[in-house]
Order: sequence, then structure tokens, then C-alpha cells
Amino acid sequence: MTTNLPTAEDRLATLGLHLPEAPTPFGAYGPAVQTGNLLVLSGMLAASGHAATVVGIVGTNLDVQAGREAAYTAALNVLALTRKQLGSLDRVSRGVRLGVSMAATAECTEHPKVADAASELLRDMFGEMTVSSRLVCGVASPLLGSAVELEVILAVQGA
Amino acid sequence: MTTNLPTAEDRLATLGLHLPEAPTPFGAYGPAVQTGNLLVLSGMLAASGHAATVVGIVGTNLDVQAGREAAYTAALNVLALTRKQLGSLDRVSRGVRLGVSMAATAECTEHPKVADAASELLRDMFGEMTVSSRLVCGVASPLLGSAVELEVILAVQGA
Amino acid sequence: MTTNLPTAEDRLATLGLHLPEAPTPFGAYGPAVQTGNLLVLSGMLAASGHAATVVGIVGTNLDVQAGREAAYTAALNVLALTRKQLGSLDRVSRGVRLGVSMAATAECTEHPKVADAASELLRDMFGEMTVSSRLVCGVASPLLGSAVELEVILAVQGA
Repeated sequence: MTTNLPTAEDRLATLGLHLPEAPTPFGAYGPAVQTGNLLVLSGMLAASGHAATVVGIVGTNLDVQAGREAAYTAALNVLALTRKQLGSLDRVSRGVRLGVSMAATAECTEHPKVADAASELLRDMFGEMTVSSRLVCGVASPLLGSAVELEVILAVQGA
Repeated sequence: MTTNLPTAEDRLATLGLHLPEAPTPFGAYGPAVQTGNLLVLSGMLAASGHAATVVGIVGTNLDVQAGREAAYTAALNVLALTRKQLGSLDRVSRGVRLGVSMAATAECTEHPKVADAASELLRDMFGEMTVSSRLVCGVASPLLGSAVELEVILAVQGA
Repeated sequence: MTTNLPTAEDRLATLGLHLPEAPTPFGAYGPAVQTGNLLVLSGMLAASGHAATVVGIVGTNLDVQAGREAAYTAALNVLALTRKQLGSLDRVSRGVRLGVSMAATAECTEHPKVADAASELLRDMFGEMTVSSRLVCGVASPLLGSAVELEVILAVQGA
């Protein structure tokens, strides 16, 4: 099928987004695993290298905007790792699962706004018709202090 | 294969269960994604529309029975969304994964009783031989205040 | 293909590891589900039978070493259940997902060290080239008080 729709790599270029270095593991596991047509990523943090860049808990030291920056930063890491694993973002056929674990107080009611910063970036890259399902929850104790951790499963073309 | 076993839709009718409107997303994601024979649902809450109906934390303002009502309500939403996505509950061939995130105190020891209210409804619909695996954990900060959030992956027939 | 590489069962024998009884469910769900080539396990705890053996929260009554014992114990349960489900650990072709939910304080920074006790055992069994992706988070309220709960998805050969 020939199409004139922009691809994910086209969209990335149009938006002028700069992807970070793809995250590397902290221990005895791999960055991502492909099985059949599914690419299962390790948890992606609001981090650069092995250091969290947005640290804290939404509702105490972080407000919603800071939480959104954490989610957005983690989603950029998703894109960087996915490109490294597949060679090109254009090999992604759709999102399957986006899980958003955010450090938040029990009283926090803004989880969806925070999570949307990740969902919106992935939608803008991969398209409105191929968005993931989503799970969001608030956790007590974030990995490395990162305010957000993303769980991602993508479907891959030609696999 | 011809069988006289009741189907999921038969069981629903026999039990006289009324399904709610299927939940709709809170943001830039889809209600569910099918990839291959797997149907991956977004997190299902104890909610009606976009408002949580059982709010709180098991062990503080909610007792085990209220937690079970939350899990049962969320499981009804699972059924409603699944039917909307597939056209009929009879297209479900089995449960694969049921994750139960419940808002609970650190001292709570009743997680399995709460989670069972969801597991039992899904078992009663889809049959004893096709139950899911299960993950349960207590979270600090529930989405929209809902006492329970369900993660669900189902296998689909003829996919 | 003929190979002289040790299999998972060979490695288990070489290490002299004794596997516990495979865990059984606490409710209306199954211990594991196979769909296609994926084996999806129920949450595995630091438990013997239905009683948690490492109870508490890393950063309060448990130190990192105790957390690692919890993760290791839960990973032994993963191996026991996998062998029971598949007949032999040699049928595992690779890890896909290892999720580690640990009870930890908000200040805890040692999640990776705790999780590695599970990752390292699975790597030692199934090999360096077939490690899982990984998700780690700290939870408020652990199931049955177990300091660690593992989420595991494995890929199965010949399925």
C-alpha cells in the first residue's frame, strides 16, 4: 500500500524533537525483548543515563506540570530505546500497552493529566489510530526517585 | 465442535446481570487494543462514567466488603468494555492476565479476598477452565480515587 | 541444532539448587496461563505455601540483603511453577518480562539491587542472551506482607 501519510520518523523530524541516548539496564536484564510481533520494553524513567532528572512525588514537592515533564522525559526515552532496538520508529505498527506508574500522594487526583504527557507524545509519533491501551497508578516508592516510570509494549511491523 | 455448555452470554443472561455503559478513555489513549489473539484493556476502575463510585483505601475508610464491591464494579466494566470491543462476550476464549491494584494500607492482609470479587465474576462468565493468571498489589494512590484498578488481558477466539 | 551448551535443567543441577513446591492459587484464578508461545505466571511471592517468608518493607524493618532474599525466594518459586507448568525448564526459550514490585519506603534508592537478586537467578538459569526486560516499582502494601512480588512472562519453545 502506498500512502502519503507522514511516518513516525517524518513526524519526529517535523516536530524537531531531539532524542536522548537510549537508556541502558541497571542490572541483569535487557533493555527490551521482542517476541513475535511484540516489543516489550524495560521500565523507562524520567532519567538521563542512570540518574533521575525529575525526582519526587506529585502532590508533595512536585506539581502537575513537573509530573508531566517527568512523563514526557520518560516517553522520549521510550522513543530513543525503540529506535535503537528496531532501527527506525517506522517499524512500529501500533501501541499496545502504556503503563504509567507515578509517585503521587493518596490525595492526588491529577494522574490522568500527568500520564497524558506521555500518551500525547506517543500518539503524536505513531498516530491517532494506533494508540495504546493505558494503565495508570500511583506508587509509593519510585525507582531511583524518578517521578514516573513507563511500561511499554508496542506492536512491530513485518515481524 | 458442537457443545451444550452455556456460553458467557448465556451465563450473563442466567445471572440476570446488567452491564454498565462501556468506559471511555480519560485522555490520549484507546479503551482497548487487540493484537493477534490478545485483547489488552485499559485500566478498569470502580467507576461510572468518569467518576469513581468506590473511593478510598482498604484498611482506613473502606472495609473488605467495600473493597470487594469496588473490584466487582470494575469487573462489570471489564465485561461491558469487552463486549463493546468484540461484539459478544462469547468471542473470549480465555483469561490471560488479571492484575488487581488496590488502594490498601501497609498492614492490610485481605488483598486476596478483595481481588477474588473480580476473579469470581470473570470465572463465572468465562468458565472455571479458562481462568486468568493473577497479580495483586496494594498501591498508595489510586487513579481518580477508585479503590481498585484492574489490568486485563484476554485471549480471543478466531483471531 | 545440536549444541553442547548446558540447558536450564543442567545449570540447576550444577548449581545444586533445590526448588520448592510450586505455589498454588489463593483464589479463583490459575497459577499460570499459556497463550501462543507466552507463559504468563501469576504473581510469585517470597512465600512458602500460602505464608510469606520475608515480611516487611525495605527501608524500615528490612535491609537490602533481606530484600534480596525475598526476591531470590520469589524467583525460586518462579522456577518451580514454570517447571510444573511446562514439564521442564528446558522448554523456556527466553524471558520476556520480569516485573518486581517491592515494598519499600519512598526514600529507598536500592530497588535495582533488590530486583537483581531475581534477575540474576533467572539469567543464571536461562542464559545471558535470553534475559527479560524489567520493570521495578515500590509499592505501599505488599500481598500477604511479602516484601517482593514478581510478575513473569516467559517465551516457550515449540509452542
